Amino acid sequence: QRLSIDEYKQGILSGNRFVLSRAITLVESRLPEDATHAAKLLEQLMPHTGGSLRVGITGVPGVGKSTFIEALGSYLTHQEIRLAVLTVDPSSARSGGSILGDKTRMTQLSQDPRAFIRPSPAGAYLGGTARKTRETMLLCEAAGFQIIFVETVGVGQSETEVRHMVDFFLLLMLSGAGDELQGIKKGIMEMADALVVNKADGDNIKAAEKARQDFQHALHLFVPPESQVDPQVFLCSSLRQEGVAEVWQFVEDYKKTTQANGYFAENRKKQNLHWFRSMLHYLLEHHFLAQEKIRKLLPAIEQQVSAGTLPATQAAREVMEAVWK
Amino acid sequence: QRLSIDEYKQGILSGNRFVLSRAITLVESRLPEDATHAAKLLEQLMPHTGGSLRVGITGVPGVGKSTFIEALGSYLTHQEIRLAVLTVDPSSARSGGSILGDKTRMTQLSQDPRAFIRPSPAGAYLGGTARKTRETMLLCEAAGFQIIFVETVGVGQSETEVRHMVDFFLLLMLSGAGDELQGIKKGIMEMADALVVNKADGDNIKAAEKARQDFQHALHLFVPPESQVDPQVFLCSSLRQEGVAEVWQFVEDYKKTTQANGYFAENRKKQNLHWFRSMLHYLLEHHFLAQEKIRKLLPAIEQQVSAGTLPATQAAREVMEAVWK
Repeated sequence: QRLSIDEYKQGILSGNRFVLSRAITLVESRLPEDATHAAKLLEQLMPHTGGSLRVGITGVPGVGKSTFIEALGSYLTHQEIRLAVLTVDPSSARSGGSILGDKTRMTQLSQDPRAFIRPSPAGAYLGGTARKTRETMLLCEAAGFQIIFVETVGVGQSETEVRHMVDFFLLLMLSGAGDELQGIKKGIMEMADALVVNKADGDNIKAAEKARQDFQHALHLFVPPESQVDPQVFLCSSLRQEGVAEVWQFVEDYKKTTQANGYFAENRKKQNLHWFRSMLHYLLEHHFLAQEKIRKLLPAIEQQVSAGTLPATQAAREVMEAVWK
Repeated sequence: QRLSIDEYKQGILSGNRFVLSRAITLVESRLPEDATHAAKLLEQLMPHTGGSLRVGITGVPGVGKSTFIEALGSYLTHQEIRLAVLTVDPSSARSGGSILGDKTRMTQLSQDPRAFIRPSPAGAYLGGTARKTRETMLLCEAAGFQIIFVETVGVGQSETEVRHMVDFFLLLMLSGAGDELQGIKKGIMEMADALVVNKADGDNIKAAEKARQDFQHALHLFVPPESQVDPQVFLCSSLRQEGVAEVWQFVEDYKKTTQANGYFAENRKKQNLHWFRSMLHYLLEHHFLAQEKIRKLLPAIEQQVSAGTLPATQAAREVMEAVWK
């Protein structure tokens, strides 16, 4: 059922969506033969990757991510821009994917010939989800997509990983929900390059403006970002398609500024290294700690460590000794 | 030169400071025989640990950590409380320790028979510093210290690790320094259980009160902490010994509330597991990636990954193959 490396490669480079989809399925596969094939394909495609602008978009459920992505995405495709929308959703991954869900969520974009929507791989293990999304992103770049949105669900499980694969990270917020209802996990706000107060329409406008000021003020308390571009807070009505042009202008300006000051390239290098190292850690753990005897040993050791009867260092040594045997 | 395990144990449990100091030196030692001896000692002492209240204190250089610790520390020792002050300072660790520095910094506490001051281990490797401080903390608990301060320098290298070993994390801030001068690394503010605006005296009082309100407002934007105790911002003049009683009352209340709601114990369990896992990762990496052949291989691979010519996954596989050979 697999194509040859060359068939995948030619299909992707010519922008064939059907071949692209099959290549993504190959990357997502957990079969060892597929993994080897996928690795070879990716290696060949590397010279054709890196050309897109990668944008992470997050926010708690209910903040209106789908309508926002529809509004911003359509704004881009109307300018003849080719856009790929990838989703990292550990929960949907566990429950077996949500292709239908994503297509119904974004009715406009899913019928748009310039847009390509791909949900989380079904049944992927947590952590792996993000890694596979990263490789999918590389495939989409080789297929000529100029902008890639990586959407994540904003409950704190995958945001950090997504932050490590995008150039720009956008956080959607609600207004008037009361501070505690924002539900944003600690740290996520500090990763954002821009905040968007969504649903700034109707009776909500006043509360939205108040929220914008509050967030802007809070952002000022943080240390200036390495990008040297101060994060901004925007108002948006995805429903009425208002505000998306301003948001996008900021993203474009960010790209120009950071390309000029060197941060853009530097950040991508760092991200590449980050992914390599986390992959290496994963493989080390996978090979050594996933052994049957270690898996049997761990629960009892962790129980003692957690209860404070066994020192952490001693426990780690005991596990390492078992690894050697 | 080493004492027997039993001599160390009896000395520590009877509160002998001289033996405690020697045991800390044993824990800090990089000699494999010392490490084995230290591990055995710690294992025996475990039933006598955990009894203190562990408080992390951080803030950028110049914020007045030493005077604050002197003020708060003396406030405690005057109540017959036995206090240990440990320092995690990766920079001093690299430059060879700063015993004299710490003793001159805290002249009052260093002469106080109820206080025990121990600086960062000299020459410890980064990351290792925090781990050794954690084990030193356990020794101090076995020696009967009721409160342990773990001081860190606030430049973002060791705060997260210290957060993982304390019950309460205190962040010292300056007022009137301008937002950007606070120099607080992203994320540190969100780890704090309380903020203290220090140097709230003289001409500075108005600016300090303004800063207090600003910080309090910013804290409200974050998600409520798992401890269920909202972080508070306090004004302090360490110089004039004002405000420390209020800060300490808050710490005590925090302890009571979190002991009642179960978070205190739950958090310690989590921290124990965290230390075990990070220790295990460290040992795995140390044993496999520190091999001569891997150390020679890594720079070239990382260069290709960083430049984007080699996919991260493929690079990680190549390293793993070299590990096997």
